[in-house]
Amino acid sequence: MRTGIWLIGARGSVAVTAVVGATALRARLVEPNGCVTELPQLRSPALPAWSELVFGGHDIVTTPVLKKADALAAAGVLPGRLVSALTADLTAIEHELRPLPAGDTQALVADRIAADLRDFRDRNALDRVVVVNVSTTEPIVTPHPAHADLARLTEALAGPDPVLPPSSLAAYAAFRAVCAFIDFTPSTGARLPALAELARVQGVPFAGNDGKTGETLVKSVLAPMFALRNLRVRSWSGLNLLGGGDGANLADPAANAAKVASKQRVLGDALGYVPEGTSRIDYVAEIGDFKTAWDLVTFEGFLGTGMRMEFTWHGCDSALAAPLVLDLARLTAAAHSAGRSGPLPELGFFFKDPLGDGPSALAEQWATLATFTAGLES
Amino acid sequence: MRTGIWLIGARGSVAVTAVVGATALRARLVEPNGCVTELPQLRSPALPAWSELVFGGHDIVTTPVLKKADALAAAGVLPGRLVSALTADLTAIEHELRPLPAGDTQALVADRIAADLRDFRDRNALDRVVVVNVSTTEPIVTPHPAHADLARLTEALAGPDPVLPPSSLAAYAAFRAVCAFIDFTPSTGARLPALAELARVQGVPFAGNDGKTGETLVKSVLAPMFALRNLRVRSWSGLNLLGGGDGANLADPAANAAKVASKQRVLGDALGYVPEGTSRIDYVAEIGDFKTAWDLVTFEGFLGTGMRMEFTWHGCDSALAAPLVLDLARLTAAAHSAGRSGPLPELGFFFKDPLGDGPSALAEQWATLATFTAGLES
Amino acid sequence: MRTGIWLIGARGSVAVTAVVGATALRARLVEPNGCVTELPQLRSPALPAWSELVFGGHDIVTTPVLKKADALAAAGVLPGRLVSALTADLTAIEHELRPLPAGDTQALVADRIAADLRDFRDRNALDRVVVVNVSTTEPIVTPHPAHADLARLTEALAGPDPVLPPSSLAAYAAFRAVCAFIDFTPSTGARLPALAELARVQGVPFAGNDGKTGETLVKSVLAPMFALRNLRVRSWSGLNLLGGGDGANLADPAANAAKVASKQRVLGDALGYVPEGTSRIDYVAEIGDFKTAWDLVTFEGFLGTGMRMEFTWHGCDSALAAPLVLDLARLTAAAHSAGRSGPLPELGFFFKDPLGDGPSALAEQWATLATFTAGLES
Amino acid sequence: MRTGIWLIGARGSVAVTAVVGATALRARLVEPNGCVTELPQLRSPALPAWSELVFGGHDIVTTPVLKKADALAAAGVLPGRLVSALTADLTAIEHELRPLPAGDTQALVADRIAADLRDFRDRNALDRVVVVNVSTTEPIVTPHPAHADLARLTEALAGPDPVLPPSSLAAYAAFRAVCAFIDFTPSTGARLPALAELARVQGVPFAGNDGKTGETLVKSVLAPMFALRNLRVRSWSGLNLLGGGDGANLADPAANAAKVASKQRVLGDALGYVPEGTSRIDYVAEIGDFKTAWDLVTFEGFLGTGMRMEFTWHGCDSALAAPLVLDLARLTAAAHSAGRSGPLPELGFFFKDPLGDGPSALAEQWATLATFTAGLES
Repeated sequence: MRTGIWLIGARGSVAVTAVVGATALRARLVEPNGCVTELPQLRSPALPAWSELVFGGHDIVTTPVLKKADALAAAGVLPGRLVSALTADLTAIEHELRPLPAGDTQALVADRIAADLRDFRDRNALDRVVVVNVSTTEPIVTPHPAHADLARLTEALAGPDPVLPPSSLAAYAAFRAVCAFIDFTPSTGARLPALAELARVQGVPFAGNDGKTGETLVKSVLAPMFALRNLRVRSWSGLNLLGGGDGANLADPAANAAKVASKQRVLGDALGYVPEGTSRIDYVAEIGDFKTAWDLVTFEGFLGTGMRMEFTWHGCDSALAAPLVLDLARLTAAAHSAGRSGPLPELGFFFKDPLGDGPSALAEQWATLATFTAGLES
Repeated sequence: MRTGIWLIGARGSVAVTAVVGATALRARLVEPNGCVTELPQLRSPALPAWSELVFGGHDIVTTPVLKKADALAAAGVLPGRLVSALTADLTAIEHELRPLPAGDTQALVADRIAADLRDFRDRNALDRVVVVNVSTTEPIVTPHPAHADLARLTEALAGPDPVLPPSSLAAYAAFRAVCAFIDFTPSTGARLPALAELARVQGVPFAGNDGKTGETLVKSVLAPMFALRNLRVRSWSGLNLLGGGDGANLADPAANAAKVASKQRVLGDALGYVPEGTSRIDYVAEIGDFKTAWDLVTFEGFLGTGMRMEFTWHGCDSALAAPLVLDLARLTAAAHSAGRSGPLPELGFFFKDPLGDGPSALAEQWATLATFTAGLES
Repeated sequence: MRTGIWLIGARGSVAVTAVVGATALRARLVEPNGCVTELPQLRSPALPAWSELVFGGHDIVTTPVLKKADALAAAGVLPGRLVSALTADLTAIEHELRPLPAGDTQALVADRIAADLRDFRDRNALDRVVVVNVSTTEPIVTPHPAHADLARLTEALAGPDPVLPPSSLAAYAAFRAVCAFIDFTPSTGARLPALAELARVQGVPFAGNDGKTGETLVKSVLAPMFALRNLRVRSWSGLNLLGGGDGANLADPAANAAKVASKQRVLGDALGYVPEGTSRIDYVAEIGDFKTAWDLVTFEGFLGTGMRMEFTWHGCDSALAAPLVLDLARLTAAAHSAGRSGPLPELGFFFKDPLGDGPSALAEQWATLATFTAGLES
Repeated sequence: MRTGIWLIGARGSVAVTAVVGATALRARLVEPNGCVTELPQLRSPALPAWSELVFGGHDIVTTPVLKKADALAAAGVLPGRLVSALTADLTAIEHELRPLPAGDTQALVADRIAADLRDFRDRNALDRVVVVNVSTTEPIVTPHPAHADLARLTEALAGPDPVLPPSSLAAYAAFRAVCAFIDFTPSTGARLPALAELARVQGVPFAGNDGKTGETLVKSVLAPMFALRNLRVRSWSGLNLLGGGDGANLADPAANAAKVASKQRVLGDALGYVPEGTSRIDYVAEIGDFKTAWDLVTFEGFLGTGMRMEFTWHGCDSALAAPLVLDLARLTAAAHSAGRSGPLPELGFFFKDPLGDGPSALAEQWATLATFTAGLES
């Protein structure tokens, strides 16, 4: 099953790391560390092979992929030897990248995005295309009546005023072109009733939101631990220090708010109550892609005795996100192929803020994912 | 179901905290924080009620329980108001405590222990008695041929030389008196083929070993997290600083070795390989019962990128252990009542080094425990 | 030398801890831990003895001192046995406490404050009185032309509009009553040209601002360490989590800004440049008086190699502040007695944001303090 | 002043980092980060310039310097671009390196070492040579009567049994060849009465021991902080995790003991008492040259209130040590030139376990160093 992965934000750190990694995996230069679809419990013939993946994408910046890969190698995100070994592939991918289309109405922009997607599919003789949003986080979107209804949305998009944030316009265009859609960011993406309706009409699945790569991943196992031991969490506070493109963007208070909200959600879900405390995000350019998160948990044991736990997570965001992008694209393509359409809540394992009402504890999310993946084979 | 809990080490911190807590719970002075058998998923009519628990025990020291409770309150382990409110109960319990018996042969000592257990049961009109070892950790035991066979063991015990470590002699006596046995310590306890044979013959269950209260609890959720995300753990090193009786005892290298071994086991089980690193225990008197553990995990993500996580756990050992002692006693009594005999591997959730080949990931241990508990009702 | 210590905020945590401590020291119930004037290098006959200190103060709340002391004992800030032993003294002090005066003009309020101070001095036959501001932090003050000149200030205070923030009005009243003044908070206090002028006219000294009790204390030794080793600090970020009265007040963004600014100042002074990063303060009620600060420092060594250091400080703010309040009062009283007037920059050792251009490295501040103290004897 | 730096362990990480760095500094490719002799307060015309330094050395291994430099670059210790830029210099240095001499008696070995030193000096027309021991740590040495007296030592060295550990034999040979000697390790080095006697006879200075690069550096500012604030430290415990050559060697309990002892010494000196706790060293190969140290300090404030501080230091040992090796060589050469002989206690700033009775607080050591350096100019 030849599968296209169309990256929105294709010249960014996560996208380029994913491309370098998938190319290296195809060339058998590396082990599939961090790819959960390579674990024995999830490996499945229903998933496209590494050799069947083809990459393309949109971006508003024009930095060559090879140059970005060199910068990532210099920053310690990628091994330089891989970039050297894959120079030809990383140059060739430029042919599949396009500037993000513009136009006088959002309807026109969507048409042009969809046209790029269809061209990509035809040119590469692909069975399926999955569009993955890995661009920077948008501010929280202002509600609009047209978000609730596909007919009204179609009409409104033809007007002169923007109706959808870029991530949702990308989802709209993807669905129109019969492509699946994944939002790896906290942006709105496909999470509007009108878009869910369109996905079902077109018979395409979608997944999201906000890849769970660091502090929230840890929370999704620690919060259930406190719950299973009946230890009452009194407060949970955190500070995330990160540089890089996403960090700079999150210095914008509106984008920050979106991210912070999705970071604390797991606590309420896993504990059954929301403890005191907030999770902050600060931009520190010098820290770059290696983000550091510190969390303090105060909790109460038997007879009210107060105790505490701290953790520091020092992770490379792109190196954590990129394999999940590949996993999600493989799983979503297989789901599309298996006839699934609309939201895929079974992929909650991957996200900070999953679609649907699934479990928030990592172990339960894993069980759901394993069942889902096994079901794709039949 | 009137249930006796006979504590080996009844005047120690864990035992006294358990007694104070159970008495306070019966008097409805506190919430059952830290008691997992009070979680909705585990609550069961098959378990003895708080009001049905009766405490007794052995100890080699003679500090009055009330005095120990005062010391625990001064150290911040217990609220002083509870000790004041429960003075009468904590004084009355002295009638049920006995010095640990001595004798010329281990057979004789076992007879005397068993007699104390039977007296306790008769005097209090108990349906069942569960013996719980919460005394200090023993050095690793030297193997002896009589450990493998009940007949040979019975014979050897009558001889002049000690054959069993104290924890195993307690299990032997408990089984002889038709009492269930729980080892909350890393000592040998019932983990000898001859003792398992005796437990089956007598129709009594046993559980263990080594209550999972701090660093290992955290490991049992973090190690699966790394495994489920296919992140390769390169090293996992830790330092445990603790004072109190258990800490002083662990300064003995032999006892320390027993404990350290059971602390790293979870990693091999959860990850499928043993990463580099060791988990050390150091005695620091001033830290007392509030132990501090620090762990450093280095791991490898996509394309080999190195990352790291640290955590510090600052927990009160007795406040974490005591509710689990009560949970285990309730569950084991119910299992005895339901006709179970021999090892109870389904209680792995509670232990660092569980009996049998059960899962080591906390979430799986929880699922096993929930199924087990539900099965007790029928 | 009988010395009065008049506390603005006399019923707050810091003040009550200081009063309990000084009373306990006088009764020889405790060691003078945390009091630097009891170190051999600073001990001096020029300082008033513990037995010569008399306490009074203003507050807007009315909680009895004894009740506050009990609450501090329950929270682990004070030993309960001290409060029991000192009940009579803690009750007697109520006679020396007054509600903070009100009035139609600030001139009138200042008169009433000054009258309270004179009454206190006369009633207790005191040689000197030192006023210490330990009330909650004020928002950053709006500049006013009258702040620059004593004559204009006197005139403006008689008008209907407030000219001075409460901390500065307290300093004004203190100076009018020929009392020394110490501001232990980040509020404006005596730091206005008109007030410095008044202090000199009246022949009284003043000191401040913002007691250095936790994260900034650590910064004042670590930042010089990096500087002396020629290691370039790239970023220094921190999060302070604290509850209690001061924490609640700091949740107000304006007060927070004042505090945060004084927290980063030491870095620029010690390093000669300001690294990236900010120091945040978050209010977490449950943490109470035991504040937790986490800092991450990233730095660059030989040949540009990147490294990092983290620290967590878990300190009881009142227990750290109270002995310094006593030290400052003793030193300032002695300085007054020795004829010093105006700002005392030599006391920079105690403050986050010291008066004058003194050193910011703790060791240099110490040397300055030792010289100053030795000079008081002659 | 042409100055030779002869490195014992010339092919190890510290030595190669020092050589790469000095070469890069001479070529003006880097800033002198981490070199304290480049701070304004210490810069002095009495010190040899970067362009006047010439490197040579002994080692028992034969890895080419260039190959080692490449390995250090791959490990992130050095920037790869420097190694590329300096390939010619790093190849040329091979001409100045020699295998560590052997012989039937230690007297003969010493003669051969001294001959190598004299050849190095003559071949390069050097004014002075400083020998620096940067080889791996030796076990604690067994005392020998000949250590106390130069005449007896000379006699004993001619015998068939080894009398001196390798580090001391190197010092002996250095002094015989009229070279200064620095021990950057915790080994014995020149710290024997017989060797001090020889240094004075030959008119050469020596310095040591054990470069202060990480945890102990932090201790040397934090311990004085607690002391200056009269806060009583109850316990100070630490764990050092490190890989690399030195780490492997320290897994040997005897070498470990030497290092651990010098790590706690600073506490007793700075505090005036030795708090509870130990500082452990564990070898974790995967951590390599980037060592991680975690320390927990528990302390007591006013009225006995317990508090705590933790820090984690994640530093690159070679990148921290190498610039200090260069600083020490420059300072010791200048001292030799200025006529100093015997121990140089004024260099305590650089060492965990300084010669003499100097201060252990970093700020005081700095003041001593600044005075010493200023005195070299005259």
